[in-house]
Amino acid sequence: MGDYPLLSKIKSPDDVKRLDEKQLDSLCEEIRGKLVEVISVNGGHLSPNLGVVELTVAMHRTFNFPKDSIVWDVGHQSYTHKLLTGRFDSFDTLRTKDGISGFPKKEESPYDDFNTGHSSTSISAAFGIANAKAMRGDNSHTIAVIGDGSLTGGLAFEAMNNAGRYNKNFIVVLNDNKMSISKNVGAIPRYLTTVRIRPWYIRVKRNTERVLSKIPLLGRLMKAILRRSKSKIKNLIYKNTLFDCFGFTYFGPIDGHNIEELENALLAAKKNNSPALIHVVTKKGKGYHPAESKPGEFHGIGQFDIDSGEPISSHKGFSAEFGRALCEFAEKDEKICAITAAMTSGTGLTEFSKFHKNRFFDVGIAEEHAVTFGCGLASKGFRPVFAVYSTFLQRSYDQLIHDAALGNNHLVLAIDRAGIVGSDGETHQGVFDVSMLNTVPNSTVYSPTYFEGMRKSLHTALYVQKGLAAVRYPRGGELYRPDNFPEESIDYNIYGNPNARFLLVTYGRLFSYACKAQQMLSEKGIDVCILKLCKIKPISDDAVFFASRFKEIWFFEEGVKNGGIARNFSDLVVLRGFRGSYHIKAIGDEFVKQMSVNEALEMLKLDSKGMTEVILKDLNNEKTT
Amino acid sequence: MGDYPLLSKIKSPDDVKRLDEKQLDSLCEEIRGKLVEVISVNGGHLSPNLGVVELTVAMHRTFNFPKDSIVWDVGHQSYTHKLLTGRFDSFDTLRTKDGISGFPKKEESPYDDFNTGHSSTSISAAFGIANAKAMRGDNSHTIAVIGDGSLTGGLAFEAMNNAGRYNKNFIVVLNDNKMSISKNVGAIPRYLTTVRIRPWYIRVKRNTERVLSKIPLLGRLMKAILRRSKSKIKNLIYKNTLFDCFGFTYFGPIDGHNIEELENALLAAKKNNSPALIHVVTKKGKGYHPAESKPGEFHGIGQFDIDSGEPISSHKGFSAEFGRALCEFAEKDEKICAITAAMTSGTGLTEFSKFHKNRFFDVGIAEEHAVTFGCGLASKGFRPVFAVYSTFLQRSYDQLIHDAALGNNHLVLAIDRAGIVGSDGETHQGVFDVSMLNTVPNSTVYSPTYFEGMRKSLHTALYVQKGLAAVRYPRGGELYRPDNFPEESIDYNIYGNPNARFLLVTYGRLFSYACKAQQMLSEKGIDVCILKLCKIKPISDDAVFFASRFKEIWFFEEGVKNGGIARNFSDLVVLRGFRGSYHIKAIGDEFVKQMSVNEALEMLKLDSKGMTEVILKDLNNEKTT
Repeated sequence: MGDYPLLSKIKSPDDVKRLDEKQLDSLCEEIRGKLVEVISVNGGHLSPNLGVVELTVAMHRTFNFPKDSIVWDVGHQSYTHKLLTGRFDSFDTLRTKDGISGFPKKEESPYDDFNTGHSSTSISAAFGIANAKAMRGDNSHTIAVIGDGSLTGGLAFEAMNNAGRYNKNFIVVLNDNKMSISKNVGAIPRYLTTVRIRPWYIRVKRNTERVLSKIPLLGRLMKAILRRSKSKIKNLIYKNTLFDCFGFTYFGPIDGHNIEELENALLAAKKNNSPALIHVVTKKGKGYHPAESKPGEFHGIGQFDIDSGEPISSHKGFSAEFGRALCEFAEKDEKICAITAAMTSGTGLTEFSKFHKNRFFDVGIAEEHAVTFGCGLASKGFRPVFAVYSTFLQRSYDQLIHDAALGNNHLVLAIDRAGIVGSDGETHQGVFDVSMLNTVPNSTVYSPTYFEGMRKSLHTALYVQKGLAAVRYPRGGELYRPDNFPEESIDYNIYGNPNARFLLVTYGRLFSYACKAQQMLSEKGIDVCILKLCKIKPISDDAVFFASRFKEIWFFEEGVKNGGIARNFSDLVVLRGFRGSYHIKAIGDEFVKQMSVNEALEMLKLDSKGMTEVILKDLNNEKTT
Repeated sequence: MGDYPLLSKIKSPDDVKRLDEKQLDSLCEEIRGKLVEVISVNGGHLSPNLGVVELTVAMHRTFNFPKDSIVWDVGHQSYTHKLLTGRFDSFDTLRTKDGISGFPKKEESPYDDFNTGHSSTSISAAFGIANAKAMRGDNSHTIAVIGDGSLTGGLAFEAMNNAGRYNKNFIVVLNDNKMSISKNVGAIPRYLTTVRIRPWYIRVKRNTERVLSKIPLLGRLMKAILRRSKSKIKNLIYKNTLFDCFGFTYFGPIDGHNIEELENALLAAKKNNSPALIHVVTKKGKGYHPAESKPGEFHGIGQFDIDSGEPISSHKGFSAEFGRALCEFAEKDEKICAITAAMTSGTGLTEFSKFHKNRFFDVGIAEEHAVTFGCGLASKGFRPVFAVYSTFLQRSYDQLIHDAALGNNHLVLAIDRAGIVGSDGETHQGVFDVSMLNTVPNSTVYSPTYFEGMRKSLHTALYVQKGLAAVRYPRGGELYRPDNFPEESIDYNIYGNPNARFLLVTYGRLFSYACKAQQMLSEKGIDVCILKLCKIKPISDDAVFFASRFKEIWFFEEGVKNGGIARNFSDLVVLRGFRGSYHIKAIGDEFVKQMSVNEALEMLKLDSKGMTEVILKDLNNEKTT
């Protein structure tokens, strides 16, 4: 464990302001040490945090939080902010149950103004905060810190369009590290490259008046043009960044690892009389060699060895298996395309992006566009697959209804991180996608348990289904599979005694827990048959008919109960004549907080022990009533 | 009825190409005549269509559809396109049951490449189509036609970021009429104003090389700068529209009512070797005086008198009543704010926007931003109300979960056009909002039947509820209210004999139909009690307990069944001990096509006659089994 002589004494940002300039480098070094130390044990977002150490220190020296307000986009880069705002002592609990969150949480500290987790929300939220302050005559500053990756999300542009030319102490800090999680894509990032290499322009701009007055002929030409319209030449000379077009005063590019330069720019923006955008250039992973050289791999990471940077455990998961399957299919079928919203590696598409480059589309952090773009491809006969995390697919709800399902465009969704995700916490749980897709007419949804079912359902989604078809699978890999479990069906499997009195219905990875629950109950003399669904929408009539003959049914679902499959199934079995007791255990009208997947499933009573308890309790209740 | 000597002979775009230039003005006049004639009877989008007559004619003369592809953003401006592509003869059926759609429909014509209805999708879809064509070696052109209003939607920017610098025959036509539905807002529209008045810039640009070579001193200055970096001065001179920053070659501004100028620009863009953006300036409502002077009112309109432009029927609806109520509350409470996504008039906020200007926020067509921005306001103690059509709220699903509910920010939604909307058809039905909100933890939803309940639930949403609270109401006004119906409760009302054997449960405007069904059934000797819910999430336990004592329950719901309230209610009554028959009539896994509201409710068996039939049939089935 490291020693943190300066950092351990920082109890609030005032302590940061009191440090003299010579101490700042040491402070930054200590912060980096602490980040690497804790993240190497708890996992977390390493590279993004290493990149903004100096920026965060400079902001805390320039502004007076929490009087001034700050919204961190995504929020995965707010660790230094946490360390400087009274959370050093509890920082070891990062991302653990009841511990410090990996994202800003207003419940955790008054210095966290607004909770984040998903990308591209910061300018909107900060602009709301700025307006609220203005309405009550509070002239403190509001700052949104947003990465160049997040800027490719449409929400950020909607906010820029709304906020531009507003002049109430509003500052956007653009943290430009040339990356989303992996290399950033699209016109805006390319554009930033041209801006980034233009410090000459700033100098020209600063000196414009002086230059003009010294060069008589140019001055005359300008006057001639100025005669036609007063402000135009001003536009031509001054307003030539994208951000000026949006009504922001542009400051930059600024070296994001030079605290003095940062403080100067922040002060200038603070004094500016219109919304300001400070373009800060940082290096993702700065200061820790393994992260600097592979910032993508260290974006979000599990436990790793500090010296080597090697991850301590790594296992082949569904993402890799999906990527492998799609590559295989694509080799035989030139119509298959893959789409990602800045998640090439996370969704397992790295190989595809190399081998089928012309059919691979990284569209930026732009889930809405990804779906509608995919529908465009599909409308002309291609077979696009959009690989996306469950939680981010929420961004595409309208496009799924309006462009995919309604337009009957054959788009395939590969939904990764479906279900409980663990330490990323409530903003990232994949527990809404099923209910969301359940409302979308004409859609088909598969939720396999094993790689086998994932491959087969992906193939069926591509070649048998029409319109919108989804295959969803959890973070990580396969769990327990009983030795005598037969081939996984993409429709449904029956496991256990079909003539039992009791039936347990479930889908996805919960089947592994159900099998163990079945064993536990069997040991108590209770014989439970399991119906494992793979196609959860629409549900096969055969499966419903099978279930309807049982005396009592329990449905366990790793997703929200409202709108979920358990309720659909209940309806269907009743229509088929079921008149027994029907029990649902799913996620209630609540958010699931940060904790490990196992802890969460235990809390929700969705693990083997929980299932067993639920069933025993229900049976007991029935006996006594 | 008018006479259309030229238009009636246009069977395909080839016929448009055959006309000589002198005939084009007459053709455009005939088109406008036909548009006004049909829309005055059937209702529809008048101003947007009048604005693009010349543009559409010019495009059909320049390109070869359907070999070339076109995607109309929103699609409400595609009427001229329909008239020129073989749909003149059937155009009188516009927006009627089984008739021509008011939006592009690929099921209707091969000239409609991609179905639209919601805003800002066109660039995404067109870019998908362009990529599909490129992959199969088809070098025809793909065009997205998008309004300046739609350009404020983030999806459009996500697409621009993705599409910029792509060079495969991709053209964006920006139809700039300075309006969304009403006056356009934000930085981008303001920016377009500066671009619009800069034809001088085009001339300067064209002559740059010549000018440079003639002015020695300027030439020298430039050389000095060029020495530092080769391409920079080029950027400074050429790349100074926003669209150039995105990698598009900018053409414009073009007079959108001058066919020759339009054809020249389209031809130039066609020959261009990179994605092109043609900035076309049009007048919304062009050529029909009442629409020119009040383009907002004639954006989407019902029947009207052609000579005066006066609407034939107008009635006070929920939108107006909501606006009135919010104004009243806001007079007494300075913390109330109103937010609209470019729908000030449609959502009834015109008065509010005048009387409480500093608390009124039109954020552009940006439903995602509207929610997150509202959460920012709420996080600092204000009471923001986002008034939005049900169908457009679909855009905000992730923000509702992530920023409102999870952040526990007190945002109130006023959801207009909830339920079946009529002739706008399947893209605009408000039948998903309930299921969508039902999945969002910690949210409260009210669905009143009368103005009274709307006012009261709005007040409760503002002052009693915390977190996300929604009040939803249908298009149009109040329907049937029985004389003996008591005060409307925001929780639930019981209407009829509480000791009856049968219970009908419903919410929102369906209650009016249920009352009449109750009468019809009573005439047949069947006594049905009605439970009218107003708070549909969470459902009051008292209401559930009341329902659980009946022998048989029917739940009628004007929304999709999957994820809907009927299924929640079913669960709850069973937990409360209900063991009778439970029937749900809601919208199945299907889209509801264009037809009048009454026709749709009849088809869905959600009107009085339908409800009566459903109940009688179920009772009959039970007798026979």
